[in-house]
Amino acid sequence: MQTVLHSVAGDDIEIGLLNGPRGIGRIVSIDSQEAVVEVERLQEHPVPQLTVDLICAITRPKILRKVLYVAAMMGVRSLHLIRTNRTEKSYLLSPLLEAENYLPYLLDGLSQGRQTRLPVVYLHPLFRPFVEDELPMLPGFSESPKIVADLGAGNFLDRVLHERTFSQIFLAVGPEGGWVDFERELLSVHGFSQFSLGQATLRVEFALTAALSQIEMVWNGGSRL
Amino acid sequence: MQTVLHSVAGDDIEIGLLNGPRGIGRIVSIDSQEAVVEVERLQEHPVPQLTVDLICAITRPKILRKVLYVAAMMGVRSLHLIRTNRTEKSYLLSPLLEAENYLPYLLDGLSQGRQTRLPVVYLHPLFRPFVEDELPMLPGFSESPKIVADLGAGNFLDRVLHERTFSQIFLAVGPEGGWVDFERELLSVHGFSQFSLGQATLRVEFALTAALSQIEMVWNGGSRL
Repeated sequence: MQTVLHSVAGDDIEIGLLNGPRGIGRIVSIDSQEAVVEVERLQEHPVPQLTVDLICAITRPKILRKVLYVAAMMGVRSLHLIRTNRTEKSYLLSPLLEAENYLPYLLDGLSQGRQTRLPVVYLHPLFRPFVEDELPMLPGFSESPKIVADLGAGNFLDRVLHERTFSQIFLAVGPEGGWVDFERELLSVHGFSQFSLGQATLRVEFALTAALSQIEMVWNGGSRL
Repeated sequence: MQTVLHSVAGDDIEIGLLNGPRGIGRIVSIDSQEAVVEVERLQEHPVPQLTVDLICAITRPKILRKVLYVAAMMGVRSLHLIRTNRTEKSYLLSPLLEAENYLPYLLDGLSQGRQTRLPVVYLHPLFRPFVEDELPMLPGFSESPKIVADLGAGNFLDRVLHERTFSQIFLAVGPEGGWVDFERELLSVHGFSQFSLGQATLRVEFALTAALSQIEMVWNGGSRL
């Protein structure tokens, strides 16, 4: 707050309660250790939000930190981290997969995005049982659009998402190096439509950003904010 | 190549010539210092590319490195770094603004994005003279769409970009904290239409990613890749 916002006592500041409303507070005191902020007002999120359930490959910890950050920044509801063929075994042993270690990246993302809903993170070390058995049981799975970003796909998202009245969507984003055919096929069998993010090969956190921003635009369907 | 791709001698590898074609090469020898790659074939970029001229605020060096990376990764042609009201003076003194220091980030981005066109970087320490005098003189400025990402904008990009037959576009992305009214107005006077990237406040490199990916989708206008 002091370094980036140059906050001083008496300033108003945007605040949010974790998994609750956002609002405005006044800084009562601030030093390098802590800030005391008095709540002035709080209000529920004014705009209806799309619910995004994200399925994302477990990547190198360096990249996974950014995936966590972006997911929180962009308002994802749940983040299912899955082991894919191109997930190296060592990644599964990363301390980052423990809640106390990944939580700071989620909180940073919420703060940047002015979001308050903390994404719920699930870890799935086995690809096939997750896709075949667990995924179809998730709330909303059967009636919601399911899409998977794939470099080789022939269509952009606006050809894949015809229905613009959904309120929930499942998005799958692959690992560095992409999906393997077995994964593509299993996702397809379970209702996932492939789409392309464009001609460039994006690093995972940027692919995720591109996908979420395209989803939001298509979901809004040319309407005003 | 050894760490990420696990390349060994004899492997085929994707290659690209700077500002030239892409293709396939064969690794003749590789060690921790260098790899010798023999060109097997090269071909011009098969897909027509949109030309993006990017105008981006000078940000903290930590963020600017990522802006450079993303611009190169996503195929931007030119990158005009401008001083905005919220650009702190110290940022202008960053060594990162010298070509020998920013070049590695551009090359990393090209490599990730499988691009070969090196963005040309220009530095503009004065906002108003750049927008009023230099910008209108840039090739294609008068006849190309001009858009500016702004958190407060009421429209998504698919309401702002009606014409889908352009081959060049000017995109402006602001600093952390956003544009000030004077900047908004000056850009508007010079033909820039505001658009919103969505409900979240994105850090600059992610805002840039979102904007470029939305542009690419709208430009393709629902057509197949």
